[in-house]
Amino acid sequence: MKEKEFIQIIKSTLNSEYIGDDCAYLKSLGIVITQDSLVEDVHFKMDYMTPYQLGYKSVMVNISDICASGAKPEYLTISLSLPKHIDKDFIKNFYEGAKEACQDVEIVGGDLTGSDKIFVSVTAIGSTKGRKISSRSNAKEGYKVIVSGEHGNSAKGLELLLNGKTEPDKFINAHIMPVAQREFSKQIASNADYDYAMMDTSDGLADALMQIAKASGVTISVDTSKIPHDPSVDMETVLYGGEDYGLVAVVPDSGNFTCIGEVTSGKTGIIIDGIFYSDIDDKLYKHFEENK
Amino acid sequence: MKEKEFIQIIKSTLNSEYIGDDCAYLKSLGIVITQDSLVEDVHFKMDYMTPYQLGYKSVMVNISDICASGAKPEYLTISLSLPKHIDKDFIKNFYEGAKEACQDVEIVGGDLTGSDKIFVSVTAIGSTKGRKISSRSNAKEGYKVIVSGEHGNSAKGLELLLNGKTEPDKFINAHIMPVAQREFSKQIASNADYDYAMMDTSDGLADALMQIAKASGVTISVDTSKIPHDPSVDMETVLYGGEDYGLVAVVPDSGNFTCIGEVTSGKTGIIIDGIFYSDIDDKLYKHFEENK
Repeated sequence: MKEKEFIQIIKSTLNSEYIGDDCAYLKSLGIVITQDSLVEDVHFKMDYMTPYQLGYKSVMVNISDICASGAKPEYLTISLSLPKHIDKDFIKNFYEGAKEACQDVEIVGGDLTGSDKIFVSVTAIGSTKGRKISSRSNAKEGYKVIVSGEHGNSAKGLELLLNGKTEPDKFINAHIMPVAQREFSKQIASNADYDYAMMDTSDGLADALMQIAKASGVTISVDTSKIPHDPSVDMETVLYGGEDYGLVAVVPDSGNFTCIGEVTSGKTGIIIDGIFYSDIDDKLYKHFEENK
Repeated sequence: MKEKEFIQIIKSTLNSEYIGDDCAYLKSLGIVITQDSLVEDVHFKMDYMTPYQLGYKSVMVNISDICASGAKPEYLTISLSLPKHIDKDFIKNFYEGAKEACQDVEIVGGDLTGSDKIFVSVTAIGSTKGRKISSRSNAKEGYKVIVSGEHGNSAKGLELLLNGKTEPDKFINAHIMPVAQREFSKQIASNADYDYAMMDTSDGLADALMQIAKASGVTISVDTSKIPHDPSVDMETVLYGGEDYGLVAVVPDSGNFTCIGEVTSGKTGIIIDGIFYSDIDDKLYKHFEENK
């Protein structure tokens, strides 16, 4: 996978301790920071998305990354590059959608430039005050795997949209207007007096588990019958479909949360219903190959 | 100018106190933040720029914005969107250039996606500890206008490049490898016990002065004979050529710095060698019109 190979080159060029989690934890400043971009015709198409929805989603995906770190989302900046044909209404609707996704997060800056296609890059800042910050390398043997929300609904929604359908609302909204799991994040991070791993499921539930397994050097075993999902969504989509923006955490004790598996001894990888995988790259969504 | 009109719409949609300066000052976190994007064929062309130079410049322009705020540049994230034909060497050279521009600033994250054209969006974070933060609305009558560096060299370099020339080095380097004015910034911001305005000259010296004049509601009067510049660069280029990334500050006392003018009473605008301008938009570089 070209993207992962490039990231290895970046890591070795920068020789930085920070590259690894979706958010960088800047201890000296008491913040976490994350930046993510959405590119027209790679991550979205304006055929099936309104400017409002684009503004909403661009912000939400970054707030979700902050939630995955355990920090409290507080501020963000938006860089927007737009073709000449874009008008005032687009700008107004985009920022109204962005504001809706923000809730109490404040948009404090960014910039605006020209481009051939729409390009949105959002940076979000979270405060670490009163929160324990996660790392995907924190999973340990005996820890439990807990999740928020239903899985696979966004991928199902995308499939419907690509086939020209605009309902059922449940799936369409899961893709177009996903909701960051602030409350789940807050509950974990405010109460944790232990190290834990947490990721969002932007690239799919199985990918998040694999990333945690690899970064922690552990085996994560999952029982698919325990994964919350809509009965009409097949298990491949539940496991590998991306962009739900649920959270998955690996913690010492599952408490009242939905537990779908645990960390066991063995080789680095994931076990799904008894079958071991050391890699799942062939099942993942690939930006570089989709890019024409 | 479409870009300024769009920014007004963003301001009114967000109703935010933050949008105005290049950096947002987040007092609760003790940081400033800025984000700026560079788009292929809008802000740069790979015909006359190496990946190393692109990495360098993308980082430098954001560090320059942090310097203009008076904060100490500390961390940054880089979001990079790349066409399929990009190879490993591009990535390696880009990040080597980025690292060179960073000096002691640390690159802590970002993301990597596909796109049709190269798109770079960088977010920089500065610490406000021990620094007084500038605002372009802080200029007051009687204040002096001080500058760092020579002006117009970058625009002259761009003109040479666009005509297929690669020397003199002085002008080419001023365009391709400009240097953020960290020391000038530190001297002003570490010692200021007063409010002051500071901007970089990314959009030209005259534009920076006009932005400060408008935000502060003052007249800024400049004597062009005092502006440091190479004798071979004409005064139009010195005043309106962008991307030098010098700093211009408006402070109570010019001290040992190069003073090129002062804040006088009168209408909002700038006076250049005795001639008043309420606007200079027709002289500025326009991204949206240049974008094909």
